[in-house]
Amino acid sequence: MTTLKQVSSVRCFDGEQRRYEHQASTLNCIMQFSVFLPPQALDGDHVPAVLWLSGLTCTDENFSSKAGAQRIAAELGLALIIPDTSPRGDDVADDDAYDFGKGAGFYVNATEQPWAKHYQMYDYITKELLDVVHSELPLNGKLSISGHSMGGHGALIMALREKERFASVSAFAPIAHPSACPWGLKAFSGYLGEDRATWQQYDAVALLRDGHDCPPLLVDQGGADNFLAEQLNFSVLEETVAKQDVLAQLRLQDGYDHSYYFIASFIEDHLRFHHSYLTR
Amino acid sequence: MTTLKQVSSVRCFDGEQRRYEHQASTLNCIMQFSVFLPPQALDGDHVPAVLWLSGLTCTDENFSSKAGAQRIAAELGLALIIPDTSPRGDDVADDDAYDFGKGAGFYVNATEQPWAKHYQMYDYITKELLDVVHSELPLNGKLSISGHSMGGHGALIMALREKERFASVSAFAPIAHPSACPWGLKAFSGYLGEDRATWQQYDAVALLRDGHDCPPLLVDQGGADNFLAEQLNFSVLEETVAKQDVLAQLRLQDGYDHSYYFIASFIEDHLRFHHSYLTR
Repeated sequence: MTTLKQVSSVRCFDGEQRRYEHQASTLNCIMQFSVFLPPQALDGDHVPAVLWLSGLTCTDENFSSKAGAQRIAAELGLALIIPDTSPRGDDVADDDAYDFGKGAGFYVNATEQPWAKHYQMYDYITKELLDVVHSELPLNGKLSISGHSMGGHGALIMALREKERFASVSAFAPIAHPSACPWGLKAFSGYLGEDRATWQQYDAVALLRDGHDCPPLLVDQGGADNFLAEQLNFSVLEETVAKQDVLAQLRLQDGYDHSYYFIASFIEDHLRFHHSYLTR
Repeated sequence: MTTLKQVSSVRCFDGEQRRYEHQASTLNCIMQFSVFLPPQALDGDHVPAVLWLSGLTCTDENFSSKAGAQRIAAELGLALIIPDTSPRGDDVADDDAYDFGKGAGFYVNATEQPWAKHYQMYDYITKELLDVVHSELPLNGKLSISGHSMGGHGALIMALREKERFASVSAFAPIAHPSACPWGLKAFSGYLGEDRATWQQYDAVALLRDGHDCPPLLVDQGGADNFLAEQLNFSVLEETVAKQDVLAQLRLQDGYDHSYYFIASFIEDHLRFHHSYLTR
């Protein structure tokens, strides 16, 4: 029995950009997500995949329409799995701010009310979504993970906690140390409560300091990013990675901001990086 | 004296994606448009440009964010000039429909009321906008033109009427024969009135039949485009071009629809096509 309902499919670079809908039992709501299947998958191959986690305010459509990733994914034979950034629906708790509630799930399992019923994004992605796409789409099980900002951090924590699942990890301008920036403090105290000991499992810098192994890592950070000084803690990530045994490249890209124009400029590097580990 | 005010600038593929604002005297309103300057222009070169005309409902931002054109424009050293699709502002006449009024200027000079005061998009693009960008940006005067749907047709009529201005012309899914499709009948009767003799100067098939010379031409049309049968008249364009002395390639792309996923898949071909004529 299939659980995925295909909502749309559009041809793109000889592959297909599809949108699916399913009842997400982890989140107690109906979720949509996007998938790019490269031409190799349409021709009958089972292909490796890159899981992409988006940033604040995004749905699955921002990366799909703005990053220009399908061109290189088609060339390399990579599927792209692009989830939404929070639970959705009229009965899902929300907040008026752009950085909390819908569009801002922060890839954690909430423990506080009224969030805990629906905001279980960590388990939704790592368990339910990955299970269903590998069961119903032509994927070969090899998987890497990437993302932007809030989603760049989501990629880091999933890779650090589920190292056996991911061949490699990359991030664009990740919120590297949410326990120590305004966005993260607001989200973690809201979703997880005030006991900071429970935050550590969702903080990439804390997980690295705690000695979690990390798959090969690539990070790009724009030097003209408006959020660099206050929110992203790139230099803390650099220092922490330098002290651990991590195969990592962290690049400060002069002049680039926080937008999808930045992502589009370097997504090819990231997909080629992942492809090199996905095909070993 | 400069007349352009730079509203924003974002680094993209080592070039800059910029937005400008100016008082458009042709349109009696303030207009915004987007420009991509490739790294060669930032380094002091004067570069050739491709003028892109967008389709119904678009502003200058759709092509800028979704087509993935900057990557190849940066490689080839091409500037991209991306105007809006209609006059804008609270005192500009509008219509509730998506296919008439704001976002739907059809690149004609309106003669009917209440449209004539602002809807002079043909003159705005071919005279005012091209003059100002060539006067204030590092362009070398060589120019090609392309566009999508309503804008694909705009590109065709401008190239046919101003052949000396454009080294080459291309279009994605153009509304090739607006005098003979619902979108065009509505727009032309609204903006130009019921005397069909005045429509001919804005109809690409009519201009071709009338013997207008055409620069080298590339057209891509998606085979799964929802609008192909009723609105686009691709086969009429094929038949008309075949009877004229035009250096043309018209391609039906199997399975592709009318979206920016289609444009993104073939924009590289179009920019390489234009580059070959812009650098002769």
